[in-house]
Amino acid sequence: MIKITLPDGTSRTFEQGVTPMDVAKDISAGFARNVISAKFNDTTIETTTPLTTDGSLVLYTWKDTDGKKAFWHSTSHVMAQAIEELYPGAKLSIGPAIENGYYYDVDFGEHSISDKDFKSIEARMIEIARGKHDFKMRAVTKAEALELYKSQNNEYKVELIENLEDGTITFCDHSTFTDLCRGGHIPNTGIIKAVKLMSVAGAYWRGDENNKQLTRIYGVSFPKQKELTEYLHLLEEAKKRDHRKLGKELELFTFSQKVGQGLPLWLPKGAALRERLENFLKQAQKKAGYEMVVTPHIGQKELYVTSGHYAKYGEDSFQPIHTPNEGEEFLLKPMNCPHHCEIYNTKPFSYKELPKRYAEFGTVYRYEQSGELHGLTRVRGFTQDDAHIFCTPDQLDKEFKDVIDLVLYVFGSLGFENFTAQVSVRDPENPGKYIGDTENWEKAEQAIINAAKDKNLNYVIETGEAAFYGPKLDFMVKDALGRSWQLGTIQVDYNLPERFDLTYKGSDNELHRPVMIHRAPFGSMERFIAILLEHTGGNFPIWLMPTQVMVLSISEKYEKYAEKVLNLLENHEIRALVDNRNETIGKKIRESEMNKVPYMIIIGEQEAANNEISVRQHGGEDLGSISIEAFSEIIKADINKTLKTFK
Amino acid sequence: MIKITLPDGTSRTFEQGVTPMDVAKDISAGFARNVISAKFNDTTIETTTPLTTDGSLVLYTWKDTDGKKAFWHSTSHVMAQAIEELYPGAKLSIGPAIENGYYYDVDFGEHSISDKDFKSIEARMIEIARGKHDFKMRAVTKAEALELYKSQNNEYKVELIENLEDGTITFCDHSTFTDLCRGGHIPNTGIIKAVKLMSVAGAYWRGDENNKQLTRIYGVSFPKQKELTEYLHLLEEAKKRDHRKLGKELELFTFSQKVGQGLPLWLPKGAALRERLENFLKQAQKKAGYEMVVTPHIGQKELYVTSGHYAKYGEDSFQPIHTPNEGEEFLLKPMNCPHHCEIYNTKPFSYKELPKRYAEFGTVYRYEQSGELHGLTRVRGFTQDDAHIFCTPDQLDKEFKDVIDLVLYVFGSLGFENFTAQVSVRDPENPGKYIGDTENWEKAEQAIINAAKDKNLNYVIETGEAAFYGPKLDFMVKDALGRSWQLGTIQVDYNLPERFDLTYKGSDNELHRPVMIHRAPFGSMERFIAILLEHTGGNFPIWLMPTQVMVLSISEKYEKYAEKVLNLLENHEIRALVDNRNETIGKKIRESEMNKVPYMIIIGEQEAANNEISVRQHGGEDLGSISIEAFSEIIKADINKTLKTFK
Repeated sequence: MIKITLPDGTSRTFEQGVTPMDVAKDISAGFARNVISAKFNDTTIETTTPLTTDGSLVLYTWKDTDGKKAFWHSTSHVMAQAIEELYPGAKLSIGPAIENGYYYDVDFGEHSISDKDFKSIEARMIEIARGKHDFKMRAVTKAEALELYKSQNNEYKVELIENLEDGTITFCDHSTFTDLCRGGHIPNTGIIKAVKLMSVAGAYWRGDENNKQLTRIYGVSFPKQKELTEYLHLLEEAKKRDHRKLGKELELFTFSQKVGQGLPLWLPKGAALRERLENFLKQAQKKAGYEMVVTPHIGQKELYVTSGHYAKYGEDSFQPIHTPNEGEEFLLKPMNCPHHCEIYNTKPFSYKELPKRYAEFGTVYRYEQSGELHGLTRVRGFTQDDAHIFCTPDQLDKEFKDVIDLVLYVFGSLGFENFTAQVSVRDPENPGKYIGDTENWEKAEQAIINAAKDKNLNYVIETGEAAFYGPKLDFMVKDALGRSWQLGTIQVDYNLPERFDLTYKGSDNELHRPVMIHRAPFGSMERFIAILLEHTGGNFPIWLMPTQVMVLSISEKYEKYAEKVLNLLENHEIRALVDNRNETIGKKIRESEMNKVPYMIIIGEQEAANNEISVRQHGGEDLGSISIEAFSEIIKADINKTLKTFK
Repeated sequence: MIKITLPDGTSRTFEQGVTPMDVAKDISAGFARNVISAKFNDTTIETTTPLTTDGSLVLYTWKDTDGKKAFWHSTSHVMAQAIEELYPGAKLSIGPAIENGYYYDVDFGEHSISDKDFKSIEARMIEIARGKHDFKMRAVTKAEALELYKSQNNEYKVELIENLEDGTITFCDHSTFTDLCRGGHIPNTGIIKAVKLMSVAGAYWRGDENNKQLTRIYGVSFPKQKELTEYLHLLEEAKKRDHRKLGKELELFTFSQKVGQGLPLWLPKGAALRERLENFLKQAQKKAGYEMVVTPHIGQKELYVTSGHYAKYGEDSFQPIHTPNEGEEFLLKPMNCPHHCEIYNTKPFSYKELPKRYAEFGTVYRYEQSGELHGLTRVRGFTQDDAHIFCTPDQLDKEFKDVIDLVLYVFGSLGFENFTAQVSVRDPENPGKYIGDTENWEKAEQAIINAAKDKNLNYVIETGEAAFYGPKLDFMVKDALGRSWQLGTIQVDYNLPERFDLTYKGSDNELHRPVMIHRAPFGSMERFIAILLEHTGGNFPIWLMPTQVMVLSISEKYEKYAEKVLNLLENHEIRALVDNRNETIGKKIRESEMNKVPYMIIIGEQEAANNEISVRQHGGEDLGSISIEAFSEIIKADINKTLKTFK
C-alpha cells in the first residue's frame, strides 16, 4: 500500500500501481471527468502513470495553468501527426506548449506553408482528435530511438537524441503517430474539441542563425468550441484596443527615433488628457491635505548613494552625468523620494505639524533594454503621480485609510470596478531581514490590515512579500477584457527616514523618526493612460474625453448657427469642436465615430430654424431634436455617473 | 586751428590748445556746468587737457557711466588724502572706480580700521571737497616718481612704478595731495557734495594670497546729498527684497547641498505660486490658440547634433548620459525646440492647418559654474514657459502681433508697467552671415517693426544684433527699484525648420518651409519669480498671493465662527487660512504681516455676535467691521485691478 497526499493536506491509501486518474475517481467521478494532467512529487506525469511510492499528488483540470500546458502540448502532437500525414517527408523538430497555445518547428523540405494551408491541417487535427486516441508513454533505448529517426532521415530528432542519456529516453504514441517526448499529456485526443492555427513564422533550428531556418506553426486549442470563439474575440478586441494603435489614431502620443526609444512625446490631445487626469487627482489631493512640490529631474550621485537608489539602479540604468568640472556627478532621478526627503529636511517639525503630505507629478528616468520597451507600458521616462506622507507611527492607521479612500475614488471615477488587494507583510521566521523595530512593523502591518478590512477590500495577505523597508498594499485591477494589471501601490517605509535622518519633535520634547508612506494611485501617467485606453477602447468616461461634443453642420449655410451652438456649449463648460468642412455629413459622422466623440450635434435647416439641435450618441443612438439646455443636462448627468466629488 | 568732431557728427574749429571744458562752454554755458569728464579719440583725458590735433571729443556729465567713473575715481583721491592725514604712515596702493563707487587698498600698518572710523574719514573728505581743489595732472620721470614713494617707504607704489615705462608716468595733484595716476578726473573736488564709506574688507596686495593683506575701504559719492539718500534707500530696499531672503522667509523654495547647487526645490507655497502663474498663462494661451504638449527632459545626442545645440552647449554643459548599451548617448535637454520640431514632424500639414502653436512648461538643464550661480536668477535647471509657432511667412505679421499682445497681457497682470523693446535686425553689410533668403528676412523684420509700431511699443532698432537664424524682439522691464531686467523674447527662426526638414503643403500643392517663432513671456519660471519677488517685495498682485486672507481669532472661543468665515471665503474662491493658535492677536498680526498676507480678518466677541468681520489690510489700514459679502466684493475689485481677462 502507498500513501498519496493531496494539495489540501489530506492523504489516502491505495494499492501500489494506482494511477492519478484512479485517485481522481476515488475523490469523485465528476471531478475525475475534468482531470487532464498530474504532477507527482513535483514531476509532471501522465494521468495513467502507475504510482509506486508514497508521495504528493496534484491533479489538474483545464482551469489550471499546468492543465492548459498539458492540453496544448498534447495538441502539438496531434498537429504533428496531421502535418506528417499531409506533407510526407516533412521533418519534425520540437513542439512545446507556450503561454497561449503551442507551436511546432518543422522542416517542410520543398513545401512552403502559408496560412492558406491551415484549414486542411486543422480539419485533419479535428478528425484525429475525434478518434479519442490515448496518449501512451513508453521507454526506448537510445539505439532504438536513433534507429527510428535515422530511418526517417530526421537529423533534428537525431541530434536531440544524441544529447540525451540512454535510459532516460521516452516516446509518446497516439493513433498511428510516435514522437520523442518527455511526457505530460492529457488522457486522450478526444478532449480536444476546438483547434486553431494562428500564424506561421521562420525559426532557426536551435535559435541559431547559422542553422537551417525551419517553419514554425503556432496554434491554440480548447476543450470547447465556445472557448475558442471567445478567445478569438478577445484577441480581436485586444488588437483593436491596443493602446499604441489607439494612441496613434486618437493623436494622443508619438515616439521619435531622433528623440529616442521609450521617450514618449505627448501630442496636444494626449497632453490635454494627461492634464485633465492630473487636475482631477490634484483636486482630490488638495481636499485630502496634500501639498504640491516641484523638484529637479537630476540630483547629485551622492543623493542616490544616501537613498540607496544608486546601489539599486546604478549599473543597469542611465549612467552618471559629468560636468566640465572634475568630480561632479549627477544622475537622472529614478525616484522622487530622495528629493521629498530633502524638502522635509528644510525645517524642523513638531508632531503637531505632522502629517506632511508632499505630492508631485514627478518625471523619473530608468533605463530599459530596447527589446523590453512597449508603447506606454514600458518606457524609459515616465511621470509618477507620486506623494510621500511623513507621519508619526500613531497616525499611520488613519493615513493608510485615507490613502485607500483616494485610490478607490480614482478607480471609481475611471470605471475600474473589478479589483483586489494584496497585503505584503514580513516573513516572521526571518526577522533579521527587515529594517525598523518590531513594534513599529506590527503597528504598520496591523494598520494596513485594519484599513483593508475597514474599507471592505477583497484582499489577500502575502507573508514574506514585504520589502525589507516596510509592508505594503498593492491593488490588482481587472480590465474590460479580463486582463489583470497592477495599479496603485501604498508602501510603508522605515528605511529612507533613517538614511536621511528625518526627525520630528514628539510631545515628549524628544526627536523621533517619522514613518514615510509612498503612494501613487495611477502609478505612472504613461502606464495608466495605456491601461485606460485598453480598458475603455478609447471611450473614456465623458468627463475625461478630449472632445465631448462635435458639432457637425450639414452645409456651410449653417456655419453661423454652428458657431452659436459652440459658444453656448462652452458657456456650459462642455468641450466641443465644430466640423464646418465642406464634406458630406456621412463622412463627418464617420470621423467623429472614429475619434470616439461621445456626442454629435447635427445642424441643418430645421435645427437652425427651430433653434434646436439634433443629437446622436457615439455608437449610433439618436436622441432626437432637443434644446441646448436639455442637452447640457444630459451631459452633466452623464458626467456625474462616473465623476463623483471626493469626500 | 584744429577740428573737433562731436558725437552727433557735427564739428567745430578751435585754436590749438583748446580744452574740453572750453569746447563745452562753446556749446553752451549750461551744458558746461554739468560736464565733469572727457574722452578724446577714445582716450580718457581731463577736462583741462589741451587738445592739439583734430579728433573726436566726447563730453560726459554725471548721467553718463564714464562721468560717474571719473567722479568716483576722483573721490578715491579725496579719500586717500583724508586717510593720509588721519592715519600718518598709512601706505596707499591702488584705488579705482568700480560699478557702484570706488575703493582704495591701504596698508594701515599698526592701525586697524572698522566702520566706526568711517565717520571721521567722511567728515574730512567733505571738508577737502568743499575746498574746491582742482585736479591737476603732471608728467614725472620714473626717477622722480620712485624718489617720492621711496621717501615714504611705500613699497606698493614703488612696485607699481617699477613696472611702468619712463616717459608714461603721471601724477595727479589736488590740495596738498599727490597720487600716482593715469588720469580721468572731474574738474575739482567741489563737485563732490556727498560721500559715504560703505564697508571694509581684507584684500591681498595684487590679489595674491601670498602677499600682505591690505585693508580695502569701499565708498560711494554723489553730486547731490539727495542722490546719496536715494541710493542708500535703494540699497536697503534691494536687500529687503532680495529674492533669496524673501524666498526663505515666505517658504517658497530652497536649495539642498545633497540634491546639488543651482537646482531649486520648490516648497508647497512656491509650487502653488508657480502653478498659479502657469495656469494664468495657460488660460491666456488657450484663448490665443496654443496647444500644450509634453516632451521628455532628455533626448539622444543625435537630436541636438541635428538642432545645432550640441555644437553650442555640448562641451561647456552637462555631459552625455551613457547607458549599459554601447554607443547610446543621451543629453539633458538644453532647449525644448528640437522636441517640438519632432512633434511637428509627426504628420504632414497643409497651409490651411497652420499656424500650429505648441506650448510647454519645459524644464531644461544647462551647466553653470558654481561661482556664477545666484538664487533663482542663475540656476542649472529651469522651466521655460516655452512655445513654438510654426506658420507660413504670410502669417508672421499677425502671429508676431498676437505674441506681443500676450506678453503685454502678462506684464500688465503682474504690475510691470515700465518697459521698452529692442528689435534686433540683420547687419545689411554682412548678408552672408545669415541663413534664410533675403525676401523672408525682410518680411520678418518688417513684421516685427510693424508689430512694435502697431502695439505702440517704445522700441529701438539694433542693426546687426539679430542671431544668424532670425530677427527678434526683446523686452527690457524696469522694476520698482529702477533696475532693468530682460524679460520676454520673441524670436524668428529660419534655421531649425531647415535642420529638421519641416514642411507644409502650400496652396500651390508644393512643399514649403514653415517659419518658426520661439517665445517665452516669463522667460523662465525661476527667473521670473525671482524678479517678481524683487519687484514687489513679496507683495504680489492679490490674485497671485498664496494666502489672500488670514483669519485671526482673538481667542479659542471664536474658533467655530472663524471656521465658518473660512468656509464662506472658500465659497467665494478666496484663498484663506485660519490662525487659531493660542497666541496673542498682536503676534498673529505680526506674523501675517511678515508673510505679506494682503488682508487679515480679526474675529472676536463682537464680530461673532454681529455675524461680521473686522478687516485689516497689509500695512495697517483698518477697513472696519463689514459683512463677508461686502469683503468679497472688495477682494474681487482688488483682483480685477490687475488681473484682466485676455482678449
